[in-house]
Amino acid sequence: MKKKIRVVQYGVGPIGAAIVKLMRTKQAIEVVGAIDKDPSKAGQDLGTLVGAEDAPWGITVASEAAELLSDGVDLVTHSTSSSLRDVAGQLLECVQAGCCLISTCEELAYPYRKYPDISARLDAEAKEWGVALVGTGVNPGFVMDKLLLTVAAASQRVDHAKAVRIVDASHRRGPLQKKIGAGLSIDEFRAQVSAGVIKHHGLPESVAMVADGLGFTLDDIIEKIEPVIAKEAVETKFLNVQAGAVSGVHQIARGIAGGKDKIYMELKMHVGAGGSSDTIELTGEPNLTVTIPGGTHGDIATAAVVVNAIPTLLDASAGLRSSRDLPLCYFPPTALP
Amino acid sequence: MKKKIRVVQYGVGPIGAAIVKLMRTKQAIEVVGAIDKDPSKAGQDLGTLVGAEDAPWGITVASEAAELLSDGVDLVTHSTSSSLRDVAGQLLECVQAGCCLISTCEELAYPYRKYPDISARLDAEAKEWGVALVGTGVNPGFVMDKLLLTVAAASQRVDHAKAVRIVDASHRRGPLQKKIGAGLSIDEFRAQVSAGVIKHHGLPESVAMVADGLGFTLDDIIEKIEPVIAKEAVETKFLNVQAGAVSGVHQIARGIAGGKDKIYMELKMHVGAGGSSDTIELTGEPNLTVTIPGGTHGDIATAAVVVNAIPTLLDASAGLRSSRDLPLCYFPPTALP
Repeated sequence: MKKKIRVVQYGVGPIGAAIVKLMRTKQAIEVVGAIDKDPSKAGQDLGTLVGAEDAPWGITVASEAAELLSDGVDLVTHSTSSSLRDVAGQLLECVQAGCCLISTCEELAYPYRKYPDISARLDAEAKEWGVALVGTGVNPGFVMDKLLLTVAAASQRVDHAKAVRIVDASHRRGPLQKKIGAGLSIDEFRAQVSAGVIKHHGLPESVAMVADGLGFTLDDIIEKIEPVIAKEAVETKFLNVQAGAVSGVHQIARGIAGGKDKIYMELKMHVGAGGSSDTIELTGEPNLTVTIPGGTHGDIATAAVVVNAIPTLLDASAGLRSSRDLPLCYFPPTALP
Repeated sequence: MKKKIRVVQYGVGPIGAAIVKLMRTKQAIEVVGAIDKDPSKAGQDLGTLVGAEDAPWGITVASEAAELLSDGVDLVTHSTSSSLRDVAGQLLECVQAGCCLISTCEELAYPYRKYPDISARLDAEAKEWGVALVGTGVNPGFVMDKLLLTVAAASQRVDHAKAVRIVDASHRRGPLQKKIGAGLSIDEFRAQVSAGVIKHHGLPESVAMVADGLGFTLDDIIEKIEPVIAKEAVETKFLNVQAGAVSGVHQIARGIAGGKDKIYMELKMHVGAGGSSDTIELTGEPNLTVTIPGGTHGDIATAAVVVNAIPTLLDASAGLRSSRDLPLCYFPPTALP
């Protein structure tokens, strides 16, 4: 019998915790360590920190990567920040320790257009160290890009692609409700958008991935961020939104070629007014619509996409990969190492 | 610049014709020949035979494979029969000529369970000749299996999988309407089922593929074929169905483990009563439903899935592959060789 896949979790926030708990259900995986620079987390037992029923696990959260990423670690699951510039050093540290890596950093999902230099560096280092890395999650990485490209396999010709994700955040985490601006005035919302506080990262990355997969040569990718205005008052467990105030964020990204929209992506995350859903529409031969009524749950599905990608990534050729290259699939809990 | 992908079409029925016409739209592909044993087709110009607007193409349909499958052919697109036993000789002939192959033979989509010997032989020969082959199409190959397994990448745990495909055949080809038994009495329908005339092939193959992808160890795959009874009279361009007569076929395949349904697949193809749709339901963490309102058009999408798989299959490692292994994607018409 082969040895188990030895994994270290880098970043133990809500997503990192979900990833770790899911990995513990897979027979083929052994979680051997975790890293978090937050002094309130480092030193704690990982199982206790993530609120696992079978805690403690006897795994102490380390504050530095260096001490953990010895030869025995096959892969790092990484979940610390949306900004590729901020995490590039962390990624390089893992790659240079000879570890494969899957990150939820949204900007890593398809970084070639926005960060050609960092992409080239990561690709070269990964090839030199013989490891593969990828950025993925539910969005970007799955619902608005990879799933769309998979559906396009049933298309004889695609002229235009559209993906719309509506997330009712009424029952989601408090920090998420704050992050989307729920409860702010319109002026406060715009100020937080300008400050870069309110923004879902990843839409332009999805647009770029879809463009390459569909063979569209884009002149530009345009993104805008608008508030969703509450028509009536909304009360959640964590906050109140008055009628006329902001209930969430509405982002639109468009891929333009020859002055025309070729790709349209829309993400609406707000509290109240129910009805989460994901919709993909391909115009061409034939026209194809795919809907996920109720939507794909952000946190649950992101952890799933990351953990399900582990065997595929370990099998991939060395370098910087994207979910466009990887055959996404399910990782059965009973699969053997 | 690399040379184009040189392809031969084996079998020029309705699906073969759709495949050939689609391949002609791809810059990276050169259709170099076609094979059909039917004496009414052999000797004709391929473009004329398939009713292409730009016919003639200067490609004469051959009656035998041997004369065409010289060293210069990269890949054969094959569409002659649903029965793997019937086409195994044709597949071997192509493989032994050093050609990769994509077939719409439904039983080739996932043949390991029903035909372990033929599967092993095809795999061994393909490896010896350094080529890859796969059976695919819209169903099996895409909507009830590969798409389901792709969606499962967003699942933390899958306990049960269901796929339901409803096809309104009212506006489809006459031979298809006859093939599903539309217009027959119930007794005639049952006689034709017993004679093996009425049957959509591929459901057990989809069940087997999904079971392996989800890590379900099945004790059995059970299939049944029932008539759909017309509640009111239906008239199509090709035939009439009286109320109480058969309007189509209803097939159910179930994958059983430990006495329980783990996989349920249902295919209803009938005339009248509109409402084509494809639905996938995964029960687990989370529950996930995906619907394709209007469904995925059988002929259009089968040709699309086959042609879109060409670059991926040429890239795959040698041997007998299934769509489970291949990252399905779109093949842009402007992609270069």
